[in-house]
Amino acid sequence: MQEYILNLLPLKEGEQEEFEIVAPDAKHVYARSSTVTPQQIASATVVFGWPRPEMMKGAAGLKWFQTMWAGTEEYDGMLPQGVRFTSSSGSNSRSVAEHMLTSMLALCRRLPTYVDSQRAHVWRDEGPMKTILGGTVLVAGAGHVGGEFAKLCQGLGAKTIGLKRTVNGPVEGFDRLCPMEELDALLPQADVAALVLPHSPQTAGLMDARRLALMKDDAILLSAGRGTVLDQDALARAMKDGKLWGAALDVTDPEPLPKDSPLWDTPRLLLTPHVAGGMRLEITRRKCVEMALDNLRRYVAGEPLHNLVR
Amino acid sequence: MQEYILNLLPLKEGEQEEFEIVAPDAKHVYARSSTVTPQQIASATVVFGWPRPEMMKGAAGLKWFQTMWAGTEEYDGMLPQGVRFTSSSGSNSRSVAEHMLTSMLALCRRLPTYVDSQRAHVWRDEGPMKTILGGTVLVAGAGHVGGEFAKLCQGLGAKTIGLKRTVNGPVEGFDRLCPMEELDALLPQADVAALVLPHSPQTAGLMDARRLALMKDDAILLSAGRGTVLDQDALARAMKDGKLWGAALDVTDPEPLPKDSPLWDTPRLLLTPHVAGGMRLEITRRKCVEMALDNLRRYVAGEPLHNLVR
Repeated sequence: MQEYILNLLPLKEGEQEEFEIVAPDAKHVYARSSTVTPQQIASATVVFGWPRPEMMKGAAGLKWFQTMWAGTEEYDGMLPQGVRFTSSSGSNSRSVAEHMLTSMLALCRRLPTYVDSQRAHVWRDEGPMKTILGGTVLVAGAGHVGGEFAKLCQGLGAKTIGLKRTVNGPVEGFDRLCPMEELDALLPQADVAALVLPHSPQTAGLMDARRLALMKDDAILLSAGRGTVLDQDALARAMKDGKLWGAALDVTDPEPLPKDSPLWDTPRLLLTPHVAGGMRLEITRRKCVEMALDNLRRYVAGEPLHNLVR
Repeated sequence: MQEYILNLLPLKEGEQEEFEIVAPDAKHVYARSSTVTPQQIASATVVFGWPRPEMMKGAAGLKWFQTMWAGTEEYDGMLPQGVRFTSSSGSNSRSVAEHMLTSMLALCRRLPTYVDSQRAHVWRDEGPMKTILGGTVLVAGAGHVGGEFAKLCQGLGAKTIGLKRTVNGPVEGFDRLCPMEELDALLPQADVAALVLPHSPQTAGLMDARRLALMKDDAILLSAGRGTVLDQDALARAMKDGKLWGAALDVTDPEPLPKDSPLWDTPRLLLTPHVAGGMRLEITRRKCVEMALDNLRRYVAGEPLHNLVR
């Protein structure tokens, strides 16, 4: 039976041909998530991209689906039995890592306060700043994003420690790797603590009031995995009491953050609306395309697929 | 004659002893710029620090003065004839470079706009971002600061080109060095153009309307040397017309920037009040101390001093 490859990726000129070269015998159909029809979904044996999850229930002939993002939870229960499901985990790691780096440095140099001053036409020196040169950066979640962020921090002269559920060999970017159980012992040493954990029963509420209190008074907290990992109310309270040099959150719980959340006005807290990853950089888009091409080559050759979710 | 070393540096515990070990036969007097007396200035043969310039006119016995900063113009005409004058050029290079890096990344990730949204309690995606990975960073002024900034950019995967008055051998951080005359030819290639030039008749007004127009429409401009290098009004006009992805200015002309300057409200322009350098990081303070100690050792040994201004 001929494969029907439904390609919903945001392709540029010349990229359709790349897919057709890898799978010359397949039927290639190109569409956008917003325009794809139920008939196309029903006919597809392979889908690349980010269709609305409910639509996937109608994918009667589907054998393999590769989503465009690292996160996969929105497709839980939406895919027919027996379908192979792969993610694009790693495609936006560099983007998220750069966002974390930028937020961290912005706090170090008090940029949000200087933006406020600029808006008020006020030329005022806000005093001492911070550098991570010679500092310790603790990263909870030593996966693609954590490793990429750690590498950038090493480049700025920081020492990096990664926390993983299971430590089985070195991970690029980390000077040291430790099991997640050592979090409490390591938090008091960290000049920067970065949370890049997915949502799970184990991670929910991990960073609570007790653990926030373990941090140095002038440390920086970053959160860029899932919002549920952090107790937001505990953070807002601690920072109002003067704890921490600053915090930068790109994820909250829930999202969007309700208008009346105390986080909006928490001093020294920088909030961005879950924009660290996504398709905001051309390098992310191209990486997604390359990951789809690579897995399609494997699929055609009958080799194991990368980033297999199930 | 015994040396009288008037030390106005912001020393920490144990650092006075470091000076006394290097020059055991000298009389060491410690004071602050705010408390130093005319008598102390008149008695000093050596001064370290940042005294008010007019006070230095009374330094009748002075043989050598090392200022705490890279800039020296404020002491023009203030020092008695024949005094050796050294700067602390390089002491805050890392701080300025980190500020430039931070400002550049903040523009790439639209942080100022996200700060505005946060203040308004608005959760809104501002769309595409920028990375310097694979981009070209052009640095006008390949000295201490320029080189340090270029190194940080290389660490993020950018190609770096430095512009110098005289090219005589490689400078760390730069993939390529060119004479300043090539500025016009190189501006159209730059994804980021950084100005880190001192004020001089040659640099005043260097970045004018014509040269701004040579830049890519979505490039980033950084200015962190002296404000006179840039035609601010031309920049404000160009950016209002949509030119440039963003600009970050830490220096203006004059400083403080007048309340009614168009720069304050220029879109996509990030303004900080000359805070990139200075004594805002402990590493800067310590570097100043080490530079004073190193030159004092040279002075005692009769060797040539570093960072000689005249």
